[in-house]
Amino acid sequence: MKVAFLGLGNMGSNMARNLLKSGQSLIAYNRTQSRAEALRGEGAAVAASPAEAAAAADVVITMLADDAALEDVIFGKGQVLHTLRPDALHISMSTISVALSARLDEAHRQKKQTYVAAPVFGRPEAAAAARLFIVAAGQSAVLDRCQPLFSAMGQRTFIVGEKASNANLVKLTGNFMITTVIESLAEAFALTRKSGIEPHEFLEIMTETLFGAPVYRTYGKMLADDKLQPPGFKLPLGLKDNRLVMAAAEAAAVPLPLASLVHDRFVAAIAQGLGEEDWAAMARVSYRNAGL
Amino acid sequence: MKVAFLGLGNMGSNMARNLLKSGQSLIAYNRTQSRAEALRGEGAAVAASPAEAAAAADVVITMLADDAALEDVIFGKGQVLHTLRPDALHISMSTISVALSARLDEAHRQKKQTYVAAPVFGRPEAAAAARLFIVAAGQSAVLDRCQPLFSAMGQRTFIVGEKASNANLVKLTGNFMITTVIESLAEAFALTRKSGIEPHEFLEIMTETLFGAPVYRTYGKMLADDKLQPPGFKLPLGLKDNRLVMAAAEAAAVPLPLASLVHDRFVAAIAQGLGEEDWAAMARVSYRNAGL
Amino acid sequence: MKVAFLGLGNMGSNMARNLLKSGQSLIAYNRTQSRAEALRGEGAAVAASPAEAAAAADVVITMLADDAALEDVIFGKGQVLHTLRPDALHISMSTISVALSARLDEAHRQKKQTYVAAPVFGRPEAAAAARLFIVAAGQSAVLDRCQPLFSAMGQRTFIVGEKASNANLVKLTGNFMITTVIESLAEAFALTRKSGIEPHEFLEIMTETLFGAPVYRTYGKMLADDKLQPPGFKLPLGLKDNRLVMAAAEAAAVPLPLASLVHDRFVAAIAQGLGEEDWAAMARVSYRNAGL
Amino acid sequence: MKVAFLGLGNMGSNMARNLLKSGQSLIAYNRTQSRAEALRGEGAAVAASPAEAAAAADVVITMLADDAALEDVIFGKGQVLHTLRPDALHISMSTISVALSARLDEAHRQKKQTYVAAPVFGRPEAAAAARLFIVAAGQSAVLDRCQPLFSAMGQRTFIVGEKASNANLVKLTGNFMITTVIESLAEAFALTRKSGIEPHEFLEIMTETLFGAPVYRTYGKMLADDKLQPPGFKLPLGLKDNRLVMAAAEAAAVPLPLASLVHDRFVAAIAQGLGEEDWAAMARVSYRNAGL
Repeated sequence: MKVAFLGLGNMGSNMARNLLKSGQSLIAYNRTQSRAEALRGEGAAVAASPAEAAAAADVVITMLADDAALEDVIFGKGQVLHTLRPDALHISMSTISVALSARLDEAHRQKKQTYVAAPVFGRPEAAAAARLFIVAAGQSAVLDRCQPLFSAMGQRTFIVGEKASNANLVKLTGNFMITTVIESLAEAFALTRKSGIEPHEFLEIMTETLFGAPVYRTYGKMLADDKLQPPGFKLPLGLKDNRLVMAAAEAAAVPLPLASLVHDRFVAAIAQGLGEEDWAAMARVSYRNAGL
Repeated sequence: MKVAFLGLGNMGSNMARNLLKSGQSLIAYNRTQSRAEALRGEGAAVAASPAEAAAAADVVITMLADDAALEDVIFGKGQVLHTLRPDALHISMSTISVALSARLDEAHRQKKQTYVAAPVFGRPEAAAAARLFIVAAGQSAVLDRCQPLFSAMGQRTFIVGEKASNANLVKLTGNFMITTVIESLAEAFALTRKSGIEPHEFLEIMTETLFGAPVYRTYGKMLADDKLQPPGFKLPLGLKDNRLVMAAAEAAAVPLPLASLVHDRFVAAIAQGLGEEDWAAMARVSYRNAGL
Repeated sequence: MKVAFLGLGNMGSNMARNLLKSGQSLIAYNRTQSRAEALRGEGAAVAASPAEAAAAADVVITMLADDAALEDVIFGKGQVLHTLRPDALHISMSTISVALSARLDEAHRQKKQTYVAAPVFGRPEAAAAARLFIVAAGQSAVLDRCQPLFSAMGQRTFIVGEKASNANLVKLTGNFMITTVIESLAEAFALTRKSGIEPHEFLEIMTETLFGAPVYRTYGKMLADDKLQPPGFKLPLGLKDNRLVMAAAEAAAVPLPLASLVHDRFVAAIAQGLGEEDWAAMARVSYRNAGL
Repeated sequence: MKVAFLGLGNMGSNMARNLLKSGQSLIAYNRTQSRAEALRGEGAAVAASPAEAAAAADVVITMLADDAALEDVIFGKGQVLHTLRPDALHISMSTISVALSARLDEAHRQKKQTYVAAPVFGRPEAAAAARLFIVAAGQSAVLDRCQPLFSAMGQRTFIVGEKASNANLVKLTGNFMITTVIESLAEAFALTRKSGIEPHEFLEIMTETLFGAPVYRTYGKMLADDKLQPPGFKLPLGLKDNRLVMAAAEAAAVPLPLASLVHDRFVAAIAQGLGEEDWAAMARVSYRNAGL
């Protein structure tokens, strides 16, 4: 099976490397070509364009920055949609909109190609350690075919059914839930700090009792340490994902007041110069509103 | 050490029973006397009034319904504040306001009595199993004295410093955080359900990845099952605790927009006839607003 | 008709003075007695206590700072409730809670006294000019009796029915609506100012087209001038009234998300040191969140 | 001066007719051609395409449904941008995004054409009566040239400076302010209705005191009558404009929590089947949340 891997950022490079390690034959492409070249030494072929990579592949995996980047690469003139063989498969793994995923599903179907959505949970360290969580949706037989690839990149795969875009919805909803945890911690810290309670002590009580989940430990520690640099996930990317979940919710006619609140926090954070920090920096808006 | 236990509801009865089991000498009081009588067979003495119970005790533990009940029992004419010996100790374990806790601290100090706040996390089952989490604040030497009692009732004690009312603040902030989890799950379920994703499947992905904490498992399951009867914690009690955390936050000049949102949810839930359900029923407001 | 006037702050002094001008026989009382003495020269008698004032009166008008002050004066030991004659009338004109108004109604009824709620719209200048708007509720025949007094103090009286506390609800709801106008202007100014549009020019377009109401002109000008000193109505009083409308709404099981938002703004404003400014200063929270 | 008028919906038809009445030479275009034909009898020429209309014109006025429609007509292959003469003028009068207005400004400048933004306040009746309010921005000399056209369509023109897109921002901000009035009235009605106060009586008190502006009278009456059919402005159009103001605010890094709240209301209203009603129908979401 020949795999074309498009998009070699902090996540993609690590994922591609794990595919190579597992013995896959890989054709790498990245806009900034040096990142693709870096994989050549590890056995990857390097393509000059997405179209070229796709033409030679049984499977194309995309891990690009955003909807616009993915649209260009797939729908652009002479691009992947036109060079990918019938029967070949596109696995879309980056965090994209529900609407784009549905559109890709339809477009590939028209071309007799196959499409699977398989976005991931996990930061670059998890990608490097092949510890990602993969949320996949698509035809059951096709997902079976993908499993060796998923196993090379992640610790566990969750299947959410046949409708590909539902995998994207789950991913976006999960990210939404993370932001509500950050906001909840932010308000809790604002209140307890202002009353003289040391944040790490407060956090320990919470994580040792009811809130003992990775998301509380990770973001709780970042906020208690007030250490938001270097960003693991930049704040404007958080705003982007918030926009995607709100768009999906609007399309489904589901109000999400918590997402609206988080949206306002992100916008305020950017207004206050926090655009280069980790997305957890939205907590500072709560602190400032509390006069801290 | 003689312990007077005031307030034998679902929580208090279980806590008092565990004290008896651990060999404490107990004087029980409850407004509805039958609940005190029930403990007589297990070795408790029964008092006719809080004042009488307190007069004979080294330690008074209160586990009453709300601020008003506690105020009556302590500050009422001829009540506990007046019968408790100097040097005796009041351990306030129910969920009360930060302001009342501070007032109790001051009032007991004036009488040369001692005061400790030690609210708990846990539902009646946890109280029965002596698995409560206890959050205690007060003078360090006094807390040491309390530890055998705490150990008889709970699985672990967290000390938050000398300022008694800070224990109440931590408790209320923890409850606030629980409500934000319920709201977050509610909105996430509304969105995913409306898109055809089965709630238990969605929940499993979340709890097996980033959200693997008891609070997500407990409330996630209740909501996925849509089983909110019998109530473990009635919705109007949730509104009461929300009111307490908002009052504490207002006094400290800390805005808590998430608490405001949850407040509006609770009020809507009551308006829609959900006042007899578990507090997780506030999720139904999200579902209805989504047309589900 | 002998009128006892209790509470001679910025509003009350002006109202009492207008009653004197209209020829009413007046007994004045104020906690800080100098404010009552100031009216002696204009023909008022001065009472040493509310009880004394009430004992001699056919009508008691109260215009006190808040619920607590009014409760003391009416329900306190030996106070107005006990000295007011049967058949005498209490007109409650300050902004108080719906619950207290209902409680007063009941208490006076028990004593065969009469009670009317008649809160007002208008700032001290309007009180001085006898240009207040009076919102009155109570028995129709009693309101007829009150009309000469109302006419001496206000430009127009609105009757909202027999249930006295509904007048208070209308007053609080009106104040709530004012706060939503301030918040709406604040957000609109934040957005347009940041885009380089001069506030007075923006305001003119709004007030000359769809928003040509006093409330937009008054608060719009204050905000466009950014002149919030001296305060016409201090910010913490705004928070107090917000609390009253939220309590009434909670009692009626009506969620008011706009009131919740305004609540958070007031709290943030106080946290940020704006507690001595006019309540319109809550706009600064919006500006700061926008990085202005 | 030859005027091409593109877009003859309920607003555009009335505006075009008023231009004809004032003696302008008009070339009409509408996608559904019958609406253009209807104007032929009143002296208009009819064009087969926007490009054809523009080729013959000194001024093109656009009054189209949304951003997408305007983009097609201007930027589409062989469309207006390419057929409009240098020195000719485009007056964009529909409610469009700030971003599109800025893009049009730049594109026309590149072609040495002139661009003015002049969105309007007013419903179809106001358009018919030439009573629109016009908010215009662009080069001062160009606006002078437009004034006879504006005078034929509106009762008053407000100039907001040279930056064309600022006129769109003012328009969107004004619409935002209208939605906050609807929401404020909705919550106020929910609270007072539930307490037994008749809506028209409540409304009269408000509009006769502090809230005596057209926007309160118009929407207050619609809500008090609970008459939201036929829609003057359909709810999904309100959601669209809300989206535009939120996009502009996000681009300017200005959080608008009131707009977020209104967004959630619109989405809930659509979920609850109110998508065919007037946008004031979002009030029903408040009523339902209050159990009314």
